[in-house]
Amino acid sequence: MTRQIILKSRPAGIPNPDNFEIRTVDIPAVSPGQVRVMTHTMSVDPYLRGRMNDAPSYIPSFQVGEPIVGGGIARIVESNAEGFKVGSNVMGYLPWQEEMVIESSGLKIVDENMAPLSYYLGILGMPGLTAWFGLMDIGKPQSGETVVISGAAGAVGLVAGQLAKIHGCRVVGIAGGDAKISYLTDELKFDAAINYKTTSDLEASIASACPSGVDVYFDNVGGGISDAVLSQINKNARIIICGQISLYNATSQPTGPRIQSVLLKKSALMQGFIVSNYISRFDEGLKALSQLVDTGKLKYTNTTYHGFERLPEAFIALFEGKNLGKLIVEL
Amino acid sequence: MTRQIILKSRPAGIPNPDNFEIRTVDIPAVSPGQVRVMTHTMSVDPYLRGRMNDAPSYIPSFQVGEPIVGGGIARIVESNAEGFKVGSNVMGYLPWQEEMVIESSGLKIVDENMAPLSYYLGILGMPGLTAWFGLMDIGKPQSGETVVISGAAGAVGLVAGQLAKIHGCRVVGIAGGDAKISYLTDELKFDAAINYKTTSDLEASIASACPSGVDVYFDNVGGGISDAVLSQINKNARIIICGQISLYNATSQPTGPRIQSVLLKKSALMQGFIVSNYISRFDEGLKALSQLVDTGKLKYTNTTYHGFERLPEAFIALFEGKNLGKLIVEL
Repeated sequence: MTRQIILKSRPAGIPNPDNFEIRTVDIPAVSPGQVRVMTHTMSVDPYLRGRMNDAPSYIPSFQVGEPIVGGGIARIVESNAEGFKVGSNVMGYLPWQEEMVIESSGLKIVDENMAPLSYYLGILGMPGLTAWFGLMDIGKPQSGETVVISGAAGAVGLVAGQLAKIHGCRVVGIAGGDAKISYLTDELKFDAAINYKTTSDLEASIASACPSGVDVYFDNVGGGISDAVLSQINKNARIIICGQISLYNATSQPTGPRIQSVLLKKSALMQGFIVSNYISRFDEGLKALSQLVDTGKLKYTNTTYHGFERLPEAFIALFEGKNLGKLIVEL
Repeated sequence: MTRQIILKSRPAGIPNPDNFEIRTVDIPAVSPGQVRVMTHTMSVDPYLRGRMNDAPSYIPSFQVGEPIVGGGIARIVESNAEGFKVGSNVMGYLPWQEEMVIESSGLKIVDENMAPLSYYLGILGMPGLTAWFGLMDIGKPQSGETVVISGAAGAVGLVAGQLAKIHGCRVVGIAGGDAKISYLTDELKFDAAINYKTTSDLEASIASACPSGVDVYFDNVGGGISDAVLSQINKNARIIICGQISLYNATSQPTGPRIQSVLLKKSALMQGFIVSNYISRFDEGLKALSQLVDTGKLKYTNTTYHGFERLPEAFIALFEGKNLGKLIVEL
């Protein structure tokens, strides 16, 4: 027997603990091609919120009564699959479950001697690749340009900002909370960081931090923060739509200023994307990120919750902006 | 002495005849490098509306008390410039003025034996090039894709739609009025055309006309029409922001559904542009358009007003959707 966490009901607005339920399930025998694993680190990510709705998006919805599934790392405790040794760590899309039998074909072995295991869920995983392809392929930052990142202290934002710095850009982060602002400017050497929760005039703060205007906007949050950034874009600006976390819990259609006129006046590009669009180029991205991590040019941090039963709490904390860097749960 | 039309006051909302005034001015002598010309055809275009505001855009504002300037064709009646013979026709940015002395350096000689002179203000001029570069460079239509055009019966829209047909696409036009709809489907062979003024459910009409969804949206109008089209876009859709005529007369910031979430879910691209971005490639575009016109593959039509003093009325008619094809004024 082991524990798993299921979607008990679909959230209306911000998820709450009652939308989730722990139940116990049996663990079957290990058939050929399968392994039995003990989960030790799970990733919680904003995109999971979309899967909790019963509406079409870029990935299928979770079903009520079924376990939540997300990125995770587990250790093999029994193997019936060639190449998957007991004691190895594997990464894959795992149910929120403490112990399980799973097909080895969807798993990738990760080496804790190469990088801290949690990095495979962050800077060397989906968030790192998201930052890399979004910034490099859509943003195309040029030395001397100004790059603004919203959600700058999140798992994707802090990689995107550092990558822009490495490419010679002026980098301005937008985040909520003094600790995040300090981390961005003191640790990651962003040129400026704006605490949107305390500024009295976000548009003026952005204008002041971006005296030459905004050439690239890496948007993780949407809403009013994005309206303020768009007011400052330059001709030929590129706007990367990576996430819209401020709107994921909306219970009615969010409205705001129409932005097409700004794109028209500025000959600006706006492009939405999801990292899986780039699956054929993941190796290229991972190679670049690994080199930057190995040489100390890219820093990374996690916010860690401890305990399987805290997975829902950690997930909900994403929408309260409680995380600095990648939010993970160690079981 | 000759007549010119000046901007008497800045329009608030839809322009009205009182925003314009006819005055008489002297005609100076023709200095070296200059010609004296008689205007015979003027173009009126939606973008002029933006120049009537006292706000920064992609081109400078008109000044109150100064003449409106737009694309036009004139005949040389006196010349002090090499290569510019009396009797030749020239195209250029001309003040709304019946007769004038002007520098030859900004003028281009046009040949009425090659194409009707009005074509140089339309399909072989700025609107044709706008359609060409917007559709080909941003839209990148692929054979079998569905292309939707708003403002489809306007000077740009009818070229964009025909170009998409030539490239093997299913083409759906949106326009206002039965005559326009008939022209699009009967004359230009669009696959479908939707009269937005009479449909009871625009979103359903678009869905019905685009059973495989929308791959490319060439947007000339913005507002609610664009909201309806965006509800039907496919993954990897391209949205060309060419104009937003429905919003040009807004007196407060237009609002509507936030669209970034749609772009995110569909990995869609939205790009604003102005034709002058492509100035270094105009010859390429004109060559392609000329060949299509010469071989009868591209059709074109004008709505013509007669009389210099009707320039303001013709311009205002643009915002009432009174034109089929290019709106021109013959003096």
